[in-house]
Amino acid sequence: MSTKLTHEEAEALVRSNDPEHPANLICELCRDFYKLGWVTGTGGGISIRHGEHVYLAPSGVQKERIKPEHIFVLPFAQSSVPKPGSQRDFIRIPSTKGLKESACTPLFWNAFTMREAGACIHTHSQHAVLLTLLLPRDAKSFKMSHQEMIKGVRIGGVGKTLRFFDTLEVPIIENTADEEDLTEGMAEAMRKYPDAPAILVRRHGVYVWGNTWEQAKTQSECLDYLFEMATKMLLAKLPLVGDE
Amino acid sequence: MSTKLTHEEAEALVRSNDPEHPANLICELCRDFYKLGWVTGTGGGISIRHGEHVYLAPSGVQKERIKPEHIFVLPFAQSSVPKPGSQRDFIRIPSTKGLKESACTPLFWNAFTMREAGACIHTHSQHAVLLTLLLPRDAKSFKMSHQEMIKGVRIGGVGKTLRFFDTLEVPIIENTADEEDLTEGMAEAMRKYPDAPAILVRRHGVYVWGNTWEQAKTQSECLDYLFEMATKMLLAKLPLVGDE
Amino acid sequence: MSTKLTHEEAEALVRSNDPEHPANLICELCRDFYKLGWVTGTGGGISIRHGEHVYLAPSGVQKERIKPEHIFVLPFAQSSVPKPGSQRDFIRIPSTKGLKESACTPLFWNAFTMREAGACIHTHSQHAVLLTLLLPRDAKSFKMSHQEMIKGVRIGGVGKTLRFFDTLEVPIIENTADEEDLTEGMAEAMRKYPDAPAILVRRHGVYVWGNTWEQAKTQSECLDYLFEMATKMLLAKLPLVGDE
Amino acid sequence: MSTKLTHEEAEALVRSNDPEHPANLICELCRDFYKLGWVTGTGGGISIRHGEHVYLAPSGVQKERIKPEHIFVLPFAQSSVPKPGSQRDFIRIPSTKGLKESACTPLFWNAFTMREAGACIHTHSQHAVLLTLLLPRDAKSFKMSHQEMIKGVRIGGVGKTLRFFDTLEVPIIENTADEEDLTEGMAEAMRKYPDAPAILVRRHGVYVWGNTWEQAKTQSECLDYLFEMATKMLLAKLPLVGDE
Repeated sequence: MSTKLTHEEAEALVRSNDPEHPANLICELCRDFYKLGWVTGTGGGISIRHGEHVYLAPSGVQKERIKPEHIFVLPFAQSSVPKPGSQRDFIRIPSTKGLKESACTPLFWNAFTMREAGACIHTHSQHAVLLTLLLPRDAKSFKMSHQEMIKGVRIGGVGKTLRFFDTLEVPIIENTADEEDLTEGMAEAMRKYPDAPAILVRRHGVYVWGNTWEQAKTQSECLDYLFEMATKMLLAKLPLVGDE
Repeated sequence: MSTKLTHEEAEALVRSNDPEHPANLICELCRDFYKLGWVTGTGGGISIRHGEHVYLAPSGVQKERIKPEHIFVLPFAQSSVPKPGSQRDFIRIPSTKGLKESACTPLFWNAFTMREAGACIHTHSQHAVLLTLLLPRDAKSFKMSHQEMIKGVRIGGVGKTLRFFDTLEVPIIENTADEEDLTEGMAEAMRKYPDAPAILVRRHGVYVWGNTWEQAKTQSECLDYLFEMATKMLLAKLPLVGDE
Repeated sequence: MSTKLTHEEAEALVRSNDPEHPANLICELCRDFYKLGWVTGTGGGISIRHGEHVYLAPSGVQKERIKPEHIFVLPFAQSSVPKPGSQRDFIRIPSTKGLKESACTPLFWNAFTMREAGACIHTHSQHAVLLTLLLPRDAKSFKMSHQEMIKGVRIGGVGKTLRFFDTLEVPIIENTADEEDLTEGMAEAMRKYPDAPAILVRRHGVYVWGNTWEQAKTQSECLDYLFEMATKMLLAKLPLVGDE
Repeated sequence: MSTKLTHEEAEALVRSNDPEHPANLICELCRDFYKLGWVTGTGGGISIRHGEHVYLAPSGVQKERIKPEHIFVLPFAQSSVPKPGSQRDFIRIPSTKGLKESACTPLFWNAFTMREAGACIHTHSQHAVLLTLLLPRDAKSFKMSHQEMIKGVRIGGVGKTLRFFDTLEVPIIENTADEEDLTEGMAEAMRKYPDAPAILVRRHGVYVWGNTWEQAKTQSECLDYLFEMATKMLLAKLPLVGDE
């Protein structure tokens, strides 16, 4: 299935005066995420599903400097998860010529298809990475309870919010040489931990999703806050679960 | 007592070209507080009393992105502390439709009624939370002396400023599952510690108030500075009180 | 000696379209210093000497929000160091009515008269304060060598720049209950350490000066960098002097 | 060889409405680097090669405040590495009068001539400096592996990107009293470590280069991230190489 749109129709998908249009929002949010240290060195990003289309940033570019005309658009209804570089199902937008879609594309797709998410954020936050290093080498997940910020996190990323006394659990998967090779590991962890709101990748970062971009961003902030707090607590020998 | 205002009269309460109008100020200050890490993940906020009205932000929204038309207004003269969701005494502003007032409303009210405060700030600052974790589990308060920044803090939050040799004391209360259930615990601590300029909530954050929004903000900055310094001193095994 | 200027002449001293005019610069620099954490909670500030006039900020106001019309102007040629509140030698600018000049005024004067400085900066930087707490209780000064950033610091604050192998020495004085009571202690330390580019105040902050505002700011940045590095090195048990 | 250009021709080299013109970019990037803490206190900077010309900032000025008309331009085709202050091969731009080119000039030249780099960045980042202090005193290089951010770094700074399992190695050279005296030490390290993407200077900072300014900036961000992560891992006694 190749999407048949004229150049003008394709280009129109990323041109809007509405600051909340996905092509504009992705650029704005990437600038904000850069200031938080989440997407430096071209890493990380955000993908937003908008009706039948999925919007995402190009690969290997400075995330804080992307412009709407560089945003990629994919039809959401596809026979299979798109492989980066295949271009098979991409909507050809002339202004993205010479660019390649984000290597995270199939990982974002996991969130869209397995959780019906409306947005997915990937960060290389140092708090996430250091946490995966401070936890025991064989830890399969990160657990934390009794923190107010847990209440901003949703069950499965898209359900009801957790309560203060609930224990948050985020699985940790091993990193792979190529980003797209994480796809199956992430999917497997999502099947095994249906209540998890995110997937940590050891020595790499985290994937967080939500029903909307607002919920994905809110949960990314809450989780990053908890990852940072957890690293400080581990270094101070404080237990992450319980209230003793 | 339901407040009878036309839609236009109600809407006019949050529309002003004056950047120091409470509806505009709350939006500006929330953007500033976001950059300080005080209100990420939709948490925290500020409420300002302006004559007979109290202004506050909606619940569960990105605090750095709220707009004046989303601000809630309550009559200050009420028979009792408003319960979130009751809507009983709210002034119905059409543009807040679909939003819910902050869950902190009754806690802000404690500051307005018990200290005649003109503004109250609530933050989830990591310095405040980590401090409540580093202090002994049974500590009922945080004490510190011999810091220049203590001189920016007022007795009871609204009285004279402390002196360099005075000992600052901020009570710590236990967190509850729901934010409004903190109301009585906060009020009790305010009665027991009449000189305290703020209330720390273990594993949650802090409430700070002042005669005006400027004083509430100044004291929030001084206290956050002292909380951060205290966590560093505790980790370095330095005593918080005295000058040895 | 009371300065006789009409209201218009006085007001004109702080009104200029030139962004480098002292009244404009002080406002801009205070906004920058706020972001660095140097002047939060109304603390700290900068004073600039401009010909026969000294410009400085009011006391107890949010330093990141001051406006040119709130800036105080003093004649530099005075019989004695001005005492805050005396108003004796102040140029009465109508727009400063109700404000009080910075409590740091006589300390800034030390830099102007003893070092012929053109500007003096006072910060409450946590790096400066924590450094005074991590050094031994009886340390009379902070010493550091073998750091590239030492090369940005000048002998006596206004002379030649230090070299990489030189040892920087900054005296530490004890804090007092009232800021103006630091005046003589600071002057005494400046006499005893003629080569020192700054004075640290234990549990309080630092005073840094230079021939011009650019040099005062550059030296404040270099010293703050070195204070921060020194706290990290002390916590990691690394020696501050030498290259072992 | 003295470059013969009229004043107007010389001035035109630094005047452009294109924000990506090197004279404009250097000013914008220095403002960004200042916020990252890379170029405070007038230290650090960036040089960009643009066809036959090399653009760089003046020495000893506030890097976040330089303007295009203060940028120096040198012909790239020169008989020898330019010595600062020699002025021999400089293009005389009237608006740089009174300024001196950056002391880093011959070090930037190493990157341009030995790696055919298009841009070179020098930072005084505390992460870089603290890393050189936390590693053993006789360590000749910094090594790290199994970090996603390694994949943003290129072999020799200008070749293919490293893979996740590769070991990054950055040589460390000793600092010298004068910046230009680092020139030969840096060149020698670049000859000995042809695959290194950067040179660390003990107690000073780092030099990073790339084919373009985008690649130099991306690699500076990835390396700074890794330096910061490495300091945290060393303080937590975690090994930098391997995945145990």
